[in-house]
Amino acid sequence: MKYPNSNETYHKKISYANRGMKLEELINDANSYYIDNNIALIFKKPTPIGIVSVANKDKQKIITKAYFKEASTLDYNGVYKGQYIEFDAKETLSQTSFPLSNISVHQLKHIENIIQHKGIVFLVIKINNHFYLIGGKQIIDFVKSKKRKSIPIKYFQEHCININLKHNILDYIESLNLYLGGNYE
Amino acid sequence: MKYPNSNETYHKKISYANRGMKLEELINDANSYYIDNNIALIFKKPTPIGIVSVANKDKQKIITKAYFKEASTLDYNGVYKGQYIEFDAKETLSQTSFPLSNISVHQLKHIENIIQHKGIVFLVIKINNHFYLIGGKQIIDFVKSKKRKSIPIKYFQEHCININLKHNILDYIESLNLYLGGNYE
Repeated sequence: MKYPNSNETYHKKISYANRGMKLEELINDANSYYIDNNIALIFKKPTPIGIVSVANKDKQKIITKAYFKEASTLDYNGVYKGQYIEFDAKETLSQTSFPLSNISVHQLKHIENIIQHKGIVFLVIKINNHFYLIGGKQIIDFVKSKKRKSIPIKYFQEHCININLKHNILDYIESLNLYLGGNYE
Repeated sequence: MKYPNSNETYHKKISYANRGMKLEELINDANSYYIDNNIALIFKKPTPIGIVSVANKDKQKIITKAYFKEASTLDYNGVYKGQYIEFDAKETLSQTSFPLSNISVHQLKHIENIIQHKGIVFLVIKINNHFYLIGGKQIIDFVKSKKRKSIPIKYFQEHCININLKHNILDYIESLNLYLGGNYE
């Protein structure tokens, strides 16, 4: 895989060292790294909210009441080599399995829709201090065939691609390339 | 182009008749039509906001103060036949030209980034009661070479693809196919 870096114009310098290890921060840092190095263009979607009331203050509109909407899609999307990518990052405190209750019914439907439209869809799972990439089709197959309430850690170890943390960059695109070269439907 | 309709599971019935003619509504209706008919999966992004304060009320989190952030990307994105699509819809009251001030510097940079990552990026422009699809590259070329403050209607008429309104569906994907078959970079 070539990591071109031809577009110097928008190259920003960000220090990736000494940052927190929370999964969302790791993903955000990886996305910044991918943008800075022209590898992929992936963003966290804005939080979906329902606006109840807005006031005008000093000629600016201020939201004075709003509520958080339940997510019906995944948190991150963007473009990688022309292809549509959407994914979510989930961590579980359980060291033995990932509870499927972490994924809503709407999100499962959305994952199926993305697969149908030939987009790339996956989850980044942090379990027992390891990171795995599990494909959307793997999740759907698991939900449909196993009828279990959680994915055991053994499944990740045996059927999913590990994501390496290199110099604080959680390089999920490297794992995605392996996944796409393998059993991607 | 085939318009497959194999996935009956999530097929919803929506009446597209007797709806308003505002551009955003037309785009939202087209997107619903595309999802219902398994043509494309495209959504309006949530409005980007900055949350200032949150209160707990009846065990629910309520946003009590927030502000609207300036858009630095385009309003709609999604997947069409595996490809990444992002676009925005803009209308102008002027019947003779489209002011480039409608597109922010951040949005222009974002358009360039999408092109670099081989995503499909365009604007849907409503001018003088006609709808046109103008490609991201066309906009960037116009901004860079012409150094004008607006795009004259003649440019849309001569160099852009018309978008047809059929039974209240603004079929921009049909125009996109023509665009992609033509001078898409």
